[in-house]
Amino acid sequence: MRIAVDVMGGDFGCDVVLGGIKLALQHNNRIQALYLVGQRDCIERALEQSGFQDPRLQIVHASEVLTMEDRPVAAVRRKKDCSIARAVDLVKTGKADAMISPGNTGGIVAASTLKLGTLPGVERPGIATVIPAPENEFVLLDSGANIECKPIHLAQYALMGHVYSREILGHKKPRVGILSVGTEAIKGNELTLEAFKLCEKLPIHFIGNVEGHDLFRNRVDVVICDGFVGNIVLKTCESLAKGMLTWLKEELMKNLKRQLGALLARNAFRAIVRRMDPDGYGGAPLLGLNGNVMKAHGSARERAIMNAIRITSETIQHHINRLITEEIAAAAERLDPDKSGVAASAFA
Amino acid sequence: MRIAVDVMGGDFGCDVVLGGIKLALQHNNRIQALYLVGQRDCIERALEQSGFQDPRLQIVHASEVLTMEDRPVAAVRRKKDCSIARAVDLVKTGKADAMISPGNTGGIVAASTLKLGTLPGVERPGIATVIPAPENEFVLLDSGANIECKPIHLAQYALMGHVYSREILGHKKPRVGILSVGTEAIKGNELTLEAFKLCEKLPIHFIGNVEGHDLFRNRVDVVICDGFVGNIVLKTCESLAKGMLTWLKEELMKNLKRQLGALLARNAFRAIVRRMDPDGYGGAPLLGLNGNVMKAHGSARERAIMNAIRITSETIQHHINRLITEEIAAAAERLDPDKSGVAASAFA
Repeated sequence: MRIAVDVMGGDFGCDVVLGGIKLALQHNNRIQALYLVGQRDCIERALEQSGFQDPRLQIVHASEVLTMEDRPVAAVRRKKDCSIARAVDLVKTGKADAMISPGNTGGIVAASTLKLGTLPGVERPGIATVIPAPENEFVLLDSGANIECKPIHLAQYALMGHVYSREILGHKKPRVGILSVGTEAIKGNELTLEAFKLCEKLPIHFIGNVEGHDLFRNRVDVVICDGFVGNIVLKTCESLAKGMLTWLKEELMKNLKRQLGALLARNAFRAIVRRMDPDGYGGAPLLGLNGNVMKAHGSARERAIMNAIRITSETIQHHINRLITEEIAAAAERLDPDKSGVAASAFA
Repeated sequence: MRIAVDVMGGDFGCDVVLGGIKLALQHNNRIQALYLVGQRDCIERALEQSGFQDPRLQIVHASEVLTMEDRPVAAVRRKKDCSIARAVDLVKTGKADAMISPGNTGGIVAASTLKLGTLPGVERPGIATVIPAPENEFVLLDSGANIECKPIHLAQYALMGHVYSREILGHKKPRVGILSVGTEAIKGNELTLEAFKLCEKLPIHFIGNVEGHDLFRNRVDVVICDGFVGNIVLKTCESLAKGMLTWLKEELMKNLKRQLGALLARNAFRAIVRRMDPDGYGGAPLLGLNGNVMKAHGSARERAIMNAIRITSETIQHHINRLITEEIAAAAERLDPDKSGVAASAFA
């Protein structure tokens, strides 16, 4: 397989992304070509300094970079030669099987939606982020691609999340729930109440509404919400988990007795830090696009980039997009308001 | 002051709520009367069994109870003699200065909004929950009263949260932010983008958008959002914090070395558990109502009920409702679309 990586968009610069690619190529023989997309000077300098060489590497020059301040759609139109757009182009022309970027999320969504379009029948792409919980891990979808959602978008996310959880996380019958303010079917806002009715019709294990309390109690495998809620939930969880670990560390350093205790129990802390580590997945796919696109964390370090490449390669191997297309086609009739319920002709 | 407590709605029954009231009365001489609202038999039996007596206690019989399964508005209309409604009645008739209930949140919102109405100029009440963070604590408003919000509701929450943070939490110049998907002013959904423009006009320290990452980093004192998002964020944080502590405990118990370490460092864990404890506040006020109404956690234990009573008594002492009314009146012109910008008459 051939993978394109936007090496410009990460918070820590080109070197760190190249470091992650180096690790990934060492571990993955399936990768036949890896396109380094970005400013040629910058990439060549970084390669030279690190001494990193691999016959599979190919530089694809892109003169511009989208920043976090850019308005996504406008910037993608204006900065035609930005690294995100060029990486998407490689997928569009069939030169790459997938692209990965740690850059501006809105920019990735805009460029890939404009250039690749969605899979047949899919209305909007959604970002599927895997979040670790004490006893399991769950997919949060959408975690930030689609800020203003319609009920059909949520229902399609439910189907796509079902496929992703089954294929990549190995759940045979993933529990899919809509994130709401209570578990009862009557609880929710206009969007989730309508989406609930659609999800009931799908050939998935739909468990109804879930609330915030259910997320870290191994009650749900795929959590469906709009991109506004999902992005807030994702970042809040990252912030709280990090805050609690920092806080614990400070408390443990306060005196010698606690420090000794921390030393003896250090493997307990390590186990938690390792498991909570957002770098373990490193990347979240934009499901529903007509092409494989993976969003890596802006603050992704080498290990996160390596893991994003690993997940991307698994996504390609499992033909996620073909499976999604099939499931969406099979469900189309159930979700089409014109074809469900009593036929209009009955009243003719 | 005189406080009415719905003793029926808690998950752990009447006894636990009475236990909390007992603790509160021991510590608070300002309370002149405490109305126990609920089924008389049940209350008398619990009082007798515990031997709890206090001349300030008065039983107010209410024959019905709202359950978590009841649809709030319909149930409040149907179960006219439920404990929530009777407790609100005591506030409405001036017999009590405030009411507290650990019952069905929707029921409390419905009963108190229908019976008391909102303060002059306030469109919707919002629940203001205090959430502890490593270096500070912040108010999350609305955390579940108003699921479908308009921009003006969020702007009014910003003002009310500002007053609450200043008066009850002692922040002289609370930092007020709108919870969104990015800190830039262009990030958000239709609701938050419009609310942003309104908040800029208010005489508060409005810091713009905040995102999930900012919540636990001491960057904001009052977090504004609609009740759908707020309820999900609140419950997600509770779930994650609890999950992480349980997880840590399990890891620490895995072998003798870790157990010894945990023993030595136990004060570090205790400091965190104590600080993260949701019982520390115990109750969250419904701000904006024409009367003091406090929502206690459904799973409130004695200490939580005691603290809910303490916070209620502080809210009464600080005349929060009078201050909110004044601030809302002062801001009315700034927030009125007909009176801002170029006057319509200029074009006459």
